[in-house]
Amino acid sequence: MIFDILDTLGTIAFAISGTLSAIKKKFDIFGIFVISLVTAIGGGTLRDILIGNVPVTWLTQNYTFTIILFSTVFAMIFRKRLYILRTSLFLFDTIGIGVFTLIGLEKGLMMDLSPIICVLLGTITACFGGVLRDILCNEIPVLFQKEIYATTCIFGGIVFFILKYFQVNDDILYVVTAGSIVFLRIFAVQKKWSFPTLDM
Amino acid sequence: MIFDILDTLGTIAFAISGTLSAIKKKFDIFGIFVISLVTAIGGGTLRDILIGNVPVTWLTQNYTFTIILFSTVFAMIFRKRLYILRTSLFLFDTIGIGVFTLIGLEKGLMMDLSPIICVLLGTITACFGGVLRDILCNEIPVLFQKEIYATTCIFGGIVFFILKYFQVNDDILYVVTAGSIVFLRIFAVQKKWSFPTLDM
Amino acid sequence: MIFDILDTLGTIAFAISGTLSAIKKKFDIFGIFVISLVTAIGGGTLRDILIGNVPVTWLTQNYTFTIILFSTVFAMIFRKRLYILRTSLFLFDTIGIGVFTLIGLEKGLMMDLSPIICVLLGTITACFGGVLRDILCNEIPVLFQKEIYATTCIFGGIVFFILKYFQVNDDILYVVTAGSIVFLRIFAVQKKWSFPTLDM
Repeated sequence: MIFDILDTLGTIAFAISGTLSAIKKKFDIFGIFVISLVTAIGGGTLRDILIGNVPVTWLTQNYTFTIILFSTVFAMIFRKRLYILRTSLFLFDTIGIGVFTLIGLEKGLMMDLSPIICVLLGTITACFGGVLRDILCNEIPVLFQKEIYATTCIFGGIVFFILKYFQVNDDILYVVTAGSIVFLRIFAVQKKWSFPTLDM
Repeated sequence: MIFDILDTLGTIAFAISGTLSAIKKKFDIFGIFVISLVTAIGGGTLRDILIGNVPVTWLTQNYTFTIILFSTVFAMIFRKRLYILRTSLFLFDTIGIGVFTLIGLEKGLMMDLSPIICVLLGTITACFGGVLRDILCNEIPVLFQKEIYATTCIFGGIVFFILKYFQVNDDILYVVTAGSIVFLRIFAVQKKWSFPTLDM
Repeated sequence: MIFDILDTLGTIAFAISGTLSAIKKKFDIFGIFVISLVTAIGGGTLRDILIGNVPVTWLTQNYTFTIILFSTVFAMIFRKRLYILRTSLFLFDTIGIGVFTLIGLEKGLMMDLSPIICVLLGTITACFGGVLRDILCNEIPVLFQKEIYATTCIFGGIVFFILKYFQVNDDILYVVTAGSIVFLRIFAVQKKWSFPTLDM
């Protein structure tokens, strides 16, 4: 139940973030909607295709699509205010990353995959939508260059399996995992942590 | 039967359009063939992967591949004349969009998906090949910036379901749906209709 | 057995080649790892998705992932020396192409696909990782512009089916097919063979 609410929040946040990116790129309103859709469902779609969970979830119901459609229209109308509110947007986006990582981890466990692969699936779920958005906008994915974005997903995955090892109750497991991702990302962005690049 | 003929025409048109794009980009003849192939099969492939219809159709027979190979060679040889004939190319391409949308709609219905999702599948089938072509050529997909390209597919999908609701005979359903897409696109391009972009 | 060894060698070579590309692009160490992973598994993943062999192989065991992780760390540490050793890197990469083509051919045969489609699958397996690497780095895939890269895979596929026709023993079949790809590529690069582009 709380899972579904968080999932919806994450989808909304990603749709809004995709919409704002596409507006900045001067895409027309149809292009904006495509980028919004791709940002919100890209990660889950790649995960489902890789594990063979097809038809992918968002094809089998109208809920996700409708949520994204409304979020996009909302973001297009209130785009100037949202820009001012970008701190709360960052928070939504971060919640999205936390929840989507969790969903990927759980799906991996359901398929009896190993912990390392589950963490990878969680990271793909949370991050690939943004990568696709950047590819379609013809930019180098921000994931590869700034902040410790995906690393927070890996960190969350490790927290998840440590708690799992100690057989913590599921509700606590979910809240602490997603919470640790959100916390680490906020902390990392405030401290301007980033990974080093290497000289050739 | 008429369906198969139109499908073949659409494949040929997309292969030719991919070939001309790649020649303009100065790709070598192998690269030209890859772009041609991707433009012609990209949309149907993504659709089949999303709905779990694998192995994807063009892997299980030689027909599609052979058609694309011949179309590419043909387009390479007659590239200068084809450029002059770009009006008829535009017509072929538009027929391709009409037919591919129809195929996507039908496949969605076969999977018992909702009308909204069927329209989305039709649009993906018709448009994603061109998006892939643009990504591989390292350009921002034209789909997001010019003309009301994908919107004609959505319009066709709506026509399709209205006719379906009135239980129109299948042959008429197919011809009117594809025809309405072709007609709207030609009309829209002549009137230079386009979607607005948004200011930030 | 020799197959598994060659597969591992190919994976290592592709991971190292991806790592060096990403370092040159100034990606951070996380981005470097993603590019390394994508280069090494991209081709096999697309092949498996297209033929419906899901969950894809590298999800169901830790071996591939671990190999790539170590290869990447190794390549990051020894990046300056590897650059000097780029001749041996080229050799590894070429071995990778040979072996990955072979694996694609065999998987196609297992699915009873036609020879043309098997050759296509072999080529996808060997080449698509590099295409993905270039797309993520926001460059036009080198595959479309330089050398006769993918063509060596097609050549190897033809050799494979000729030997198959004469019912050659499997070990010889594998060694000669992969060997012919390696040989042709080295020869082609030394002779600076390339395909023509076409004037408009």
